[in-house]
Amino acid sequence: MSFEVCILGSGAALPTSLRNPTSQYVKCNDRHILIDCGEGTQVQLRKRHIHIQKISHILISHLHGDHFFGLVGLLSSLHLLGRDKGLTIYGPEELEQIIRLQLEAGGTSLGFDLHFMPLNGNEHKLIFEDKLIEIWTFPLRHRIPTNGFLIREKIRERKLDAERFREAGLSLTLIPKLKQGLDVVLDSGETIYFDDYTYPQKPGKSYAFCSDTIFDEHIVEYIKKADVLYHEATFLNDKLKRAKQTFHSTAGQAATIARQAKVGKLLLGHLSARYENGLKHLEEASVVFPNTQVVEDGDVYKV
Amino acid sequence: MSFEVCILGSGAALPTSLRNPTSQYVKCNDRHILIDCGEGTQVQLRKRHIHIQKISHILISHLHGDHFFGLVGLLSSLHLLGRDKGLTIYGPEELEQIIRLQLEAGGTSLGFDLHFMPLNGNEHKLIFEDKLIEIWTFPLRHRIPTNGFLIREKIRERKLDAERFREAGLSLTLIPKLKQGLDVVLDSGETIYFDDYTYPQKPGKSYAFCSDTIFDEHIVEYIKKADVLYHEATFLNDKLKRAKQTFHSTAGQAATIARQAKVGKLLLGHLSARYENGLKHLEEASVVFPNTQVVEDGDVYKV
Repeated sequence: MSFEVCILGSGAALPTSLRNPTSQYVKCNDRHILIDCGEGTQVQLRKRHIHIQKISHILISHLHGDHFFGLVGLLSSLHLLGRDKGLTIYGPEELEQIIRLQLEAGGTSLGFDLHFMPLNGNEHKLIFEDKLIEIWTFPLRHRIPTNGFLIREKIRERKLDAERFREAGLSLTLIPKLKQGLDVVLDSGETIYFDDYTYPQKPGKSYAFCSDTIFDEHIVEYIKKADVLYHEATFLNDKLKRAKQTFHSTAGQAATIARQAKVGKLLLGHLSARYENGLKHLEEASVVFPNTQVVEDGDVYKV
Repeated sequence: MSFEVCILGSGAALPTSLRNPTSQYVKCNDRHILIDCGEGTQVQLRKRHIHIQKISHILISHLHGDHFFGLVGLLSSLHLLGRDKGLTIYGPEELEQIIRLQLEAGGTSLGFDLHFMPLNGNEHKLIFEDKLIEIWTFPLRHRIPTNGFLIREKIRERKLDAERFREAGLSLTLIPKLKQGLDVVLDSGETIYFDDYTYPQKPGKSYAFCSDTIFDEHIVEYIKKADVLYHEATFLNDKLKRAKQTFHSTAGQAATIARQAKVGKLLLGHLSARYENGLKHLEEASVVFPNTQVVEDGDVYKV
């Protein structure tokens, strides 16, 4: 089991040769998810040797171009490379028409099913779950409707105490039920208690994504105790007014959210192109929340 | 006066880390023109230190994504960087709606005027001229309506024979008229003949752009004697059938067009991602048309 995030783009609205616009690839328990898809994302995926056909879910936070202008290009490439497996996109409603219009203009009929799940930027809800993961959305506060996302591993099965189980000489067929936390009554009438032979796993980990947003303490409840939080930090505190005007956050504000939410680790990104590097962002945030890193394109973080 | 072409993207439908999708920047006598705008073009422009606000005309050949998916991102960046000078886009009619829809979804109201001139892929006509250049479009034959382009320097003013003019002791105020090829009658009644003091410049140079197209000899008349021809060469001759099916050309076919049109130089691009490099394209084309080069991203060619 693994849970990691690869930063494909860590820049803000203006892409630079060092920072692509926002996109992240999340691998969680063999589920492959793309969050946002700024221009150039498909080349970033290629550079990182990520197998793009494994991506099954694409989450789009909002319709500012630096978060989705690479999406139609990626879909076209998936098609050209022979994809037949369906793909689900979660994002603002208008996105569906934007995509369909461009594919139609190019005479492209995708070789795979494209499903849309519209998000309105205003709800806290579970948008996907299977036996391994859950994906939640929650509202961010930006100039246009914007969705945050939280990806959580499902609490896993209990772990077998293999030595004790072997010593008891029990049938291997009991294992699945015991791992699921169920007692088993044998034909002999004897009850085998699951907690005698298994112990609980650690709870599932979670990753929260907040880009773009003004400083908003309402976010805290949605991302409480996430193991890793990515929060935008377009500006530094000396640009508090500008941050408020543009509905963005500073590094210090992002760290305040991280501290209030008691997350494990804070990742900062979406740095304005005006900053040559993230040193000052790191300095400003670390005072408030020490376990902080400023992300760079290509970074991979374990959750 | 200068006339040069910078190759921003030399790849085909699937971008790679070496070849971006199609885009070219043409500087002709202080006119700045972008031809096609595949995904990632704005970062390519930035890497080449091209002053993007100087671009006044954008020509879009057709609506396959590898020729325009970078356009809305570029427009957004021009806006964010404070542009107020108008911009004209020449391309298929549907492009206007595609752009407007995305800008609206992002709540973006451009700070500059965006003009559209629809092209239908079916006409040979002059689409722009001023005192320095002409831009022509002509039909290519692809799976969807596709426009070729030719940019030509206007035939310039005549050149002053400075020595002779000085020796004659004439007033400098006569120069503009003489350069325009006009005789001047002095107050004394004497006629100063323009061809006594000026001589003709070389005719204006021209650059022709043909991407994407099946092998089509009709093109020849539109690009006759162009100084430089860029022609797509998606495939090699061993994929003639595939080229025909997909309405693309081989390197050999591109060279045949170049030879028939008696152009000065042939540039090959739009290479399929299946080819590691352009060596075989060069070999195949050079047999037919020796003055050939296979372009790479970042190359600059003098016209």
